[in-house]
Amino acid sequence: MQTLENLLNHKTIRNYKPDPIDEKTLNTILEAGFRASTTGNMQVYSVIVTKDEAKRKELCKLHFNQKMVEQAPILLTFCADFNRFNKWCRQRKAEPGYDNFLSFFTAAIDALLVAQNAAVAAEDFGLGICYLGTTTYQADKLIDFFNLPKGVVPVTTLVVGYPAENPAQVDRLPAKGVVHYEKYADYTPQDIDEIYAEKESLPETKKLLEENQLETLAQIFTQNRYKKADNLHFSKVLLKVLEQQGFMNND
Amino acid sequence: MQTLENLLNHKTIRNYKPDPIDEKTLNTILEAGFRASTTGNMQVYSVIVTKDEAKRKELCKLHFNQKMVEQAPILLTFCADFNRFNKWCRQRKAEPGYDNFLSFFTAAIDALLVAQNAAVAAEDFGLGICYLGTTTYQADKLIDFFNLPKGVVPVTTLVVGYPAENPAQVDRLPAKGVVHYEKYADYTPQDIDEIYAEKESLPETKKLLEENQLETLAQIFTQNRYKKADNLHFSKVLLKVLEQQGFMNND
Repeated sequence: MQTLENLLNHKTIRNYKPDPIDEKTLNTILEAGFRASTTGNMQVYSVIVTKDEAKRKELCKLHFNQKMVEQAPILLTFCADFNRFNKWCRQRKAEPGYDNFLSFFTAAIDALLVAQNAAVAAEDFGLGICYLGTTTYQADKLIDFFNLPKGVVPVTTLVVGYPAENPAQVDRLPAKGVVHYEKYADYTPQDIDEIYAEKESLPETKKLLEENQLETLAQIFTQNRYKKADNLHFSKVLLKVLEQQGFMNND
Repeated sequence: MQTLENLLNHKTIRNYKPDPIDEKTLNTILEAGFRASTTGNMQVYSVIVTKDEAKRKELCKLHFNQKMVEQAPILLTFCADFNRFNKWCRQRKAEPGYDNFLSFFTAAIDALLVAQNAAVAAEDFGLGICYLGTTTYQADKLIDFFNLPKGVVPVTTLVVGYPAENPAQVDRLPAKGVVHYEKYADYTPQDIDEIYAEKESLPETKKLLEENQLETLAQIFTQNRYKKADNLHFSKVLLKVLEQQGFMNND
């Protein structure tokens, strides 16, 4: 059960050695990605590989200056992509009807399953990975950067490289806080206290609260990390991107 | 490299034995899921386990009568879920700002990475899986069925069970048709011909065209499988669901 062990031992890596990843390894990681389930076997996604050092430095700026973005040898940007499929349809006397929100979301699901397969495959090679949530925040800028045509939207990015650190595994909520049986059992105030008790009692949490001079861990999220004003701003960016890339013709 | 082999050998399973999955196996699959990367370690997802036979029969109807839905012993419905996190925030003197489209998409990414990890873990146990794309089409009905509160939206479903078939692995587009280096190289008509050549020449494709009395494989998609009118209908359903579940307050 090496696979299960790999999955259960996952750690996000944020410091990388500059060592390159050989072509065969990269190709195998991508092949493993493309074996993920895909809606109707349409494969409505694309992956953009960034190796070039100058381009990694530019991408680093776009991804909010997270140093690992220029440090690691490879970035994989996963895109929802109906462009290729639409072109194929038009070249084959078929009129595509994929310029709508459902089609975008279908393609995004496809792209994300590929990304997670690639992440698991990379770790099997002893590589480390980190997902960049900044991909959706900066979708408009990444579209310019990569020259993405209509029908293509970046949905996530994987940093991939050999780890230069071996961090402790981070906490997760107890499974009973995340799993429901048969029906969704909504949370009572007592449930919430129990589910978050361990996380709140961690030494890291206490340190964070002192550093940020805040009373609760939840405030670190709402006031520092994922603020309402930022979320609203990036919601508008992302919805505008969907429109510009031709995925909001819903009538 | 057992993990890589597992990933590269993936096949979707559509016929299942009725054999149950023991609790320990299910719990390990879910734990492997929860080890997937998650935005800011927020874990903004929930999983609903369906084992009950009567409920599987009802779900089978909701999922367009795909027989495997009642045949397999377990269904896992993966939901984008900010409800739990919002409740925690409010209980901890923090005002959540997660009622917007970006937050929905963030939670959907979280849920989908969990789903793919769970799929890979299940296959490591010798189980088979199938994703149900019907989850987003029927999101409104699944919300009623599972009693999902505001802040929760189903994004995908995995059918899980012991395989009662051993199908051949299906085709994938050549990697060069899906991977781009440094920039997105848009497809020429000749590229499109090359990328789809193998798929179009498969015996299954010829059989499909005869059965459907259509000229091209692309027409099978646009006229039969994923029709514009259906996409528009389900786009409206999904956008309405996002609004009703409190994810479209973007101003």
